[in-house]
Amino acid sequence: MRDLASDVLLTDQYQLTMAQVYFRAGLHERPARFEHFFRSYPDYGAHQAGYAVTAGLRTFLDWLKGAHFDPFEIDPIAGHPTTTGDKMFSPDFLDWLGEHADFSALRLTAIPEGRVVHPGVPLTVVEGPLILCQLVETALLNHLNFETLIATKASRLWEAARGGNVLEFGARRAQGSGAHSVVRAALIGGASGSSLVGRSYELGFLPRGTHAHSMVQAFMALGMGELGAFSAYADVYPDDCLLLVDTIDTLESGVPNAIAVFEKLAAGGHKPLGIRLDSGDLAYLAVRSAAMLDAAGFGDTVIVLSSELDEITIRQIIEQILDESHRLGTDGDAIVRRLVYGVGSRLATSQGDPYLDGVYKLAAIEDRGEWVPAIKLSDTPAKVLTPGAKRAWRIYDERGLATADLLALADENPSPPLELHHPSQAGTKRRLGAERVSELEELGEPVQLEGRPTPHEEILAAQARRLADLERLDPGVRRLVNPHVYHVSLSPRLARLKQELIGSWSD
Amino acid sequence: MRDLASDVLLTDQYQLTMAQVYFRAGLHERPARFEHFFRSYPDYGAHQAGYAVTAGLRTFLDWLKGAHFDPFEIDPIAGHPTTTGDKMFSPDFLDWLGEHADFSALRLTAIPEGRVVHPGVPLTVVEGPLILCQLVETALLNHLNFETLIATKASRLWEAARGGNVLEFGARRAQGSGAHSVVRAALIGGASGSSLVGRSYELGFLPRGTHAHSMVQAFMALGMGELGAFSAYADVYPDDCLLLVDTIDTLESGVPNAIAVFEKLAAGGHKPLGIRLDSGDLAYLAVRSAAMLDAAGFGDTVIVLSSELDEITIRQIIEQILDESHRLGTDGDAIVRRLVYGVGSRLATSQGDPYLDGVYKLAAIEDRGEWVPAIKLSDTPAKVLTPGAKRAWRIYDERGLATADLLALADENPSPPLELHHPSQAGTKRRLGAERVSELEELGEPVQLEGRPTPHEEILAAQARRLADLERLDPGVRRLVNPHVYHVSLSPRLARLKQELIGSWSD
Repeated sequence: MRDLASDVLLTDQYQLTMAQVYFRAGLHERPARFEHFFRSYPDYGAHQAGYAVTAGLRTFLDWLKGAHFDPFEIDPIAGHPTTTGDKMFSPDFLDWLGEHADFSALRLTAIPEGRVVHPGVPLTVVEGPLILCQLVETALLNHLNFETLIATKASRLWEAARGGNVLEFGARRAQGSGAHSVVRAALIGGASGSSLVGRSYELGFLPRGTHAHSMVQAFMALGMGELGAFSAYADVYPDDCLLLVDTIDTLESGVPNAIAVFEKLAAGGHKPLGIRLDSGDLAYLAVRSAAMLDAAGFGDTVIVLSSELDEITIRQIIEQILDESHRLGTDGDAIVRRLVYGVGSRLATSQGDPYLDGVYKLAAIEDRGEWVPAIKLSDTPAKVLTPGAKRAWRIYDERGLATADLLALADENPSPPLELHHPSQAGTKRRLGAERVSELEELGEPVQLEGRPTPHEEILAAQARRLADLERLDPGVRRLVNPHVYHVSLSPRLARLKQELIGSWSD
Repeated sequence: MRDLASDVLLTDQYQLTMAQVYFRAGLHERPARFEHFFRSYPDYGAHQAGYAVTAGLRTFLDWLKGAHFDPFEIDPIAGHPTTTGDKMFSPDFLDWLGEHADFSALRLTAIPEGRVVHPGVPLTVVEGPLILCQLVETALLNHLNFETLIATKASRLWEAARGGNVLEFGARRAQGSGAHSVVRAALIGGASGSSLVGRSYELGFLPRGTHAHSMVQAFMALGMGELGAFSAYADVYPDDCLLLVDTIDTLESGVPNAIAVFEKLAAGGHKPLGIRLDSGDLAYLAVRSAAMLDAAGFGDTVIVLSSELDEITIRQIIEQILDESHRLGTDGDAIVRRLVYGVGSRLATSQGDPYLDGVYKLAAIEDRGEWVPAIKLSDTPAKVLTPGAKRAWRIYDERGLATADLLALADENPSPPLELHHPSQAGTKRRLGAERVSELEELGEPVQLEGRPTPHEEILAAQARRLADLERLDPGVRRLVNPHVYHVSLSPRLARLKQELIGSWSD
């Protein structure tokens, strides 16, 4: 079934008005190149990310596959009035859209999903007829900006959790159907599962979850109490028994009742899974609950933490557990190892910075068989573009760690020694001798539109790329707060072109 | 076509696991009542909202209509394994879902979309078989929390714009398909249009937009310059000519080129629409551009502002324009009247507070023909629930302004004089004599599942409700920063019930 909102008309009105101008000016089939990049890392208030994780390409490709103009889409456009009551779009233009707007004519190059990426570096490059490049802009930005934002947040949570599992629980407060993108991007960024049922199955993952307060409340109201609720749950799921213990009082009621139920399960040969804490001082309650579970012989159960978690809270909870355990003479590391983190709203909405400032800009257009670089100056200096068709390279140093990304013109093949120019401060540069460069890796890859692996396989591949990239990233860049700045530089030729074009248009 | 992710399995795994517990315990058809409310107004960092605007009910009802368990949905659930490799869900439970999970058995009461609402007040009440109430939780929260969040943000932008049009431009950085909810909620909250094409048509609104920098860049790269781009645009849209003037230099290039094109249009009998400013100091550029347009005889063109706008920035831009105009001796009010605001990312993601903390809680459950109130205590005091089946009333004072909302038990019919109890501080109360109450209005209304108006009519009705409610809201509560606190109080009986239940479970 066609969906007016989600298919090819997931686009901004100005893409259509510009398309008709290109058509009328005879520029619609002119080869053009657009580059998609973000300007700055997500900045969550007091803490800015030091790297991002790219995601969303497949979601965009799935959209692209279904994008075509049928009468279903063309009819409402055809009726769009001008201010004087004429038709905004003329029949010959609409006919062209219906007959010739074939998006398979686009060539895409992209940095594969899951890779660590940095500002100003083209994540996705679209080449083809100007009109088609323009018509995919909104959907491309919508899908890639958001999934990259969430994969980045998930990766930070994963770093904070020090190997503990992070589960995505955010659908109830996610931004509408953005919840579906959240699940996929969170998995790419390091989450090990999601609570959202249909979307998880669609992606080949098992949804995760046990019970809510409402179940305990219902049993309480009916006179069966918290223990009755826990027992009923254990009866149905004897081998998957994980109990939410804070409906009345965590340490006085929830944990003792859970232990009573666990003892019955154990007596029946079942292994209880653990408990979930959802309110109060989670660090303190985790230490105390762990001690009670240990004393009852359930030292191998997990403790799931939830309630407004983010990467900074997780880090602080771990620190506090280690401190308190040290004071109490217990094994804090053992407690931390049994923690699982259920992260909802703050992951699903990237709380603190809910959008990535990704843009999609004309880099070059063909004229008489040559690529002509495009520029935009702007009254806001940070919005001045680096012009021209570009490729991005990652430079690995003598330790094998990524030390900088290098933007060069598309026809350059840089090799060490390298001269690295600052992207906006003209004249500022540094040299990197051949002895300091162990590898130079091109980041973009041609995108295959057909014969792609399953959604599940693509996520696993992206997860592997992310882990490999993090291995080769300086620990200072991976810091959660105040990370070391990773450099993105220009080649000498690209730096020169930028200065020349700024000069020629500023006169 | 069924959509695994969006239909009935837009639910969290724990709704299914709890459903099976209810089924096994014989509680699945027990009448229950859940109430949906939010705990606090959106808080955008330095400024917290003083009211919210409810939205999303229709989106949830559309979901509900398509929610049923077919083999398509049941098959993946049936395959879900336990930790020991057994099946998590048993065939008799799955059969029940397929045969008896009929969501039309639910009775809904809701505060209609577009109304001004406050924390703790039930926005949506769901009554029916416990298992069905539970299974709709995730979708209800997903749709209503997000649209309410965005309608609230849009209403703040509308307040800041002082009657100027606010256009929603956010799809490119919206949270994935959350963009579709944004359009609808923004329209309910006060936006006068959106750039998103398919979704706008679906809702019966015309999408809005003109052209981007890329069009100017393309003409520049091909040697035709900014003037060539503007002329080409004006040729195609002589009666809808609105030009983006900041690609090179707003005052030195963009505005003069726009005026040149406008003069040709005017000579041909056309009326140019205006310009758009997208970078730099928007207030300064608006004052200067307005003067240039006035001098050229285009005083009735609009000036569209865009670039990271939010309600505080809009307010400051207006203040700055009025100040500067006063200094320059020009008519600042006339400039402000011609402004239009294109608001993107910060509206579409509710930047500053990207999720509403709405919850859906069991309020009561039937036992032997009686409603038994449900309670949850929690280790976090703010999470303690007000128990029981409740109805909400709005109290209007002698001026006809809303002065407080009153929560009472569902079987109460409050009438003045009123005793208003603080929702969490036991014993704190105030009296409102009959002479100070001009009207007592029940807020919830039964929801019709069938025979509803078109999406367009529903949005218009919601817009009208919002305007009527704002007319009757204290101006202090409408302030953008540091609003006066609107009170939500409990009836004496409800306050007493809450204390009794807390006492009985805390012993």
